[in-house]
Amino acid sequence: MDVEKRLKELGIALPEPPKPVANYVPAVRVGTLLFVSGHGPYHDGKTILSGKLGKELTIEEGYKTARNVALNCLASTKSTLGDLNKVKRVVKLLGMVNCTEDFKDQPKVINGASDLLVEIFGEAGRHARSAVGMQSLPNGIPVEIEMILELG
Amino acid sequence: MDVEKRLKELGIALPEPPKPVANYVPAVRVGTLLFVSGHGPYHDGKTILSGKLGKELTIEEGYKTARNVALNCLASTKSTLGDLNKVKRVVKLLGMVNCTEDFKDQPKVINGASDLLVEIFGEAGRHARSAVGMQSLPNGIPVEIEMILELG
Amino acid sequence: MDVEKRLKELGIALPEPPKPVANYVPAVRVGTLLFVSGHGPYHDGKTILSGKLGKELTIEEGYKTARNVALNCLASTKSTLGDLNKVKRVVKLLGMVNCTEDFKDQPKVINGASDLLVEIFGEAGRHARSAVGMQSLPNGIPVEIEMILELG
Repeated sequence: MDVEKRLKELGIALPEPPKPVANYVPAVRVGTLLFVSGHGPYHDGKTILSGKLGKELTIEEGYKTARNVALNCLASTKSTLGDLNKVKRVVKLLGMVNCTEDFKDQPKVINGASDLLVEIFGEAGRHARSAVGMQSLPNGIPVEIEMILELG
Repeated sequence: MDVEKRLKELGIALPEPPKPVANYVPAVRVGTLLFVSGHGPYHDGKTILSGKLGKELTIEEGYKTARNVALNCLASTKSTLGDLNKVKRVVKLLGMVNCTEDFKDQPKVINGASDLLVEIFGEAGRHARSAVGMQSLPNGIPVEIEMILELG
Repeated sequence: MDVEKRLKELGIALPEPPKPVANYVPAVRVGTLLFVSGHGPYHDGKTILSGKLGKELTIEEGYKTARNVALNCLASTKSTLGDLNKVKRVVKLLGMVNCTEDFKDQPKVINGASDLLVEIFGEAGRHARSAVGMQSLPNGIPVEIEMILELG
């Protein structure tokens, strides 16, 4: 499967990859693994959405945000590797949801990322994951996701 | 050491592995590493315990829960690999405790998982780990643990 | 570059590595990866600082703490490997900040660790990372960091 072609079929355009503003990088390759930094819903270097699940945002808004965040991760992956076809498999996500103490639907939010990855990569998009609730996230973003990818 | 035999000696029966209910899987193998998804205290697909440490649950209840969660991780490992003897070493745990803001004993809770792993795997069960306090977890579970295992 | 020499040039002395007090270890090597346990601001086995960002601690205090925590991670790395020159690259940090719900500057805190790693390792110190806000941490420490390192 050609992933870049698949993105076109799905009508999905990758955003500009976010630029880290400190002494870290969007992704690091070690052997056949790519460790992708925690990404949020950024666009052109700016936070496009803030707020907590269970308070300011609905589960559906969280789901869409997680989808957007996963796209940002893939944008960084492409800018690091040059070509998304080098991704052989999505290995693992840590999906972090900025939420209230009584919010219990982190999985429904992070499904936005998981569903997108399977849309794009098919079976190779299925991954191990944790979906958990955070006290707070940078700039008040509602979702931050980090990924581990296997490279072919 | 035969791990399956050791489990019998210890009188430990692995639970039915939980079935992920979305586009993710219980564990993904990459080379000699197995990344195990975050697991909670589930039984037959249902959450069997909810509540926060520092509020509804005592440290001892948290300890027992972490032990149960580690067993669920091993159940998924066995169902993925077919045989627990393929596990060469426990590499790392991320132990996440659903707790109040002033709860400070996350390590005592996650010890329930760490102790079990050393009971079962001996020296090969000793691992790197982080034990940290979460705002909330899916379905209000008190403990979620993800693991990285080395395969032989 | 000789990392041990570089530490001397920078006037940085590694602290005594903290001793885990349970069934886990400071770091585990698998192939060319070293997984370093979550570390806090410990000295001689005792917590030297507690408190939350956004409440008891300023960002600058958090920054200095993150720097100290990164040093503790390196102390454990040295005690595990025998020689810091075996570190080829810093791959990834998970930087966890104990903070209030409205604290949004986790990256500025974790920069204390990222900056130190680049001071010491140069380009090889640049890493993928996530910087996130936690409900609470063991013993009320303000920062906990876990690392993945690539070995040469």
